[in-house]
Amino acid sequence: MPEILLVTEAELKANVQLDKPLIDIIEQAFAKLDEGQVIMPPVLSMELPMVNGEVDVKTAFIPGLDSFTVKISPGFFDNPLKGLPSLNGLMVTFDSETGRVKAVLLDNGYLTDIRTAAAGGVAARHLAPQRVDTAGIVGAGLQARLQAKALLLERDVGQLLVWARDPNSAEAYAQAQQDALGIPVNSAESIEELVKASQVVVTTTPSKQALIKADWLHPGLHITAMGSDSPEKNELDPRILHMADRLVVDRITQSLERGEMRSAIKAGILSSGDCPYELGAICRGAAAGRLSDSEISVCDLTGTGVQDTAIADHSIKIAVKHGRGTMIDS
Amino acid sequence: MPEILLVTEAELKANVQLDKPLIDIIEQAFAKLDEGQVIMPPVLSMELPMVNGEVDVKTAFIPGLDSFTVKISPGFFDNPLKGLPSLNGLMVTFDSETGRVKAVLLDNGYLTDIRTAAAGGVAARHLAPQRVDTAGIVGAGLQARLQAKALLLERDVGQLLVWARDPNSAEAYAQAQQDALGIPVNSAESIEELVKASQVVVTTTPSKQALIKADWLHPGLHITAMGSDSPEKNELDPRILHMADRLVVDRITQSLERGEMRSAIKAGILSSGDCPYELGAICRGAAAGRLSDSEISVCDLTGTGVQDTAIADHSIKIAVKHGRGTMIDS
Repeated sequence: MPEILLVTEAELKANVQLDKPLIDIIEQAFAKLDEGQVIMPPVLSMELPMVNGEVDVKTAFIPGLDSFTVKISPGFFDNPLKGLPSLNGLMVTFDSETGRVKAVLLDNGYLTDIRTAAAGGVAARHLAPQRVDTAGIVGAGLQARLQAKALLLERDVGQLLVWARDPNSAEAYAQAQQDALGIPVNSAESIEELVKASQVVVTTTPSKQALIKADWLHPGLHITAMGSDSPEKNELDPRILHMADRLVVDRITQSLERGEMRSAIKAGILSSGDCPYELGAICRGAAAGRLSDSEISVCDLTGTGVQDTAIADHSIKIAVKHGRGTMIDS
Repeated sequence: MPEILLVTEAELKANVQLDKPLIDIIEQAFAKLDEGQVIMPPVLSMELPMVNGEVDVKTAFIPGLDSFTVKISPGFFDNPLKGLPSLNGLMVTFDSETGRVKAVLLDNGYLTDIRTAAAGGVAARHLAPQRVDTAGIVGAGLQARLQAKALLLERDVGQLLVWARDPNSAEAYAQAQQDALGIPVNSAESIEELVKASQVVVTTTPSKQALIKADWLHPGLHITAMGSDSPEKNELDPRILHMADRLVVDRITQSLERGEMRSAIKAGILSSGDCPYELGAICRGAAAGRLSDSEISVCDLTGTGVQDTAIADHSIKIAVKHGRGTMIDS
């Protein structure tokens, strides 16, 4: 009976945080993906309308890593009515040489949260202008907090603006984040005001209708749209993808299926032959990031299996090093 | 932090065996699948040629059950050279109402083994002739043993014949099974001899070329082909699917992609419009099983997510009832 490492959410939180080394790890994972040796099958998605739920399964095999991971993410959207979080799940990690179960990371979605934010950090590293007086965050949930933190790891940001559908949420966000981040954080009257005032905008919503209008774009703006990860979601006016000087996505096949490219193609703004850069090409230096202060850049993030495999492999190494987690006989 | 039930392979083996009640459970799962309320997405398959491996992920949501399961099955075919089994994996079970992780079944493939054999039992229940003087098993591995056991749960079998590529394996199988099953078990000189002498044949190999020739068919024969579960495998001469009076598959979409229908369509013997029965239709009485002693019937099994969800739900209930397994904080 092989031994399996079991790591709980509390142990994972003590082991791995959203920090610059994590952004480095996620950057390397994207670079590997672009090198072409990674095997990353399409996401397995199961829609469960009868319980207002969905389950996504993501995986990727990164040659050279000791392990690969299958990540299972259920989202059950009536849970808040029951006092439970909508999202949870876990990661199961397998030995790359033998396929044997190596670890079960009972993260309840924590590793997904921070690897998602770290991808925003990677996008900011390569695409945000060097000088960011004002950054705008659309949405006031967990990713709104984490994406701001990731951005601040990569750029000195003068102040934050936030907009959320519920003004009370935006106010609460502003207050809490000002304390947490140590910079001024204010809520914006409108998304238009936020976009026009910002050099970097991060959208973090489950919106099904475009929130950011093309008319609001201005030279030097970078937008990271990380909300759309399923085929009915959409945060950006499709024309934005056409107007951007530099359009980048984490994975073209996924953006076509569940990201902003899907909406832009549906609207006739992009054709399926239009081929933006993948973030990994920039990470490994095969394509350029931002080239000037005046470019308009857009990065669409849908969330990829390489991020899961990379953060799980990292988490296991840290757990073993610090002796955190429990070895169990299977 | 929710509590999660952790059950090891040894505990699962003590809890759940291949027996008639398990065949009933798998039969009910197929019936539910045919009723149309089940949600069962396509298999997620990841081929890993660089390590001679593959990973399959299967899942299904069965309304009315307390839980649904995502099953991860790695197969790493160089493992036997390292003294390890090729197949292993685990099942992760989620609460049907909240999507929260309910249990992790560290079965190393055990539950897959017996739910696969139980599907063979379901096929035999509905399609094997009532009188089986001789049954033939092609292959001498674990499924060859379990499929024989499942068949004997459904029919009084006079004697078994076995054929395997390696005659020593066939001999070893014959000896061990004669003791285990309490009926005569002999190895056959050829597959032809085996098929011609048998009323039921079960093929259990990873063959990539047809093993059973159409010329060997005879009235009253039932064949269950459970070996092909990936797009390059094939056990039956494609003409057999055309010649069978009753062609049944566990899931048409899967048989078209990874089962015997794939080979038959590739050979031009079936068209993709040809629509055999699904096993579930027979299980719930919407289609007939064997109607006469002289029919030739064929059942192709590729392995389905409903089997995984059904056996996992059952296993958890038994574990809770008997207090086996460990509750852990996630």
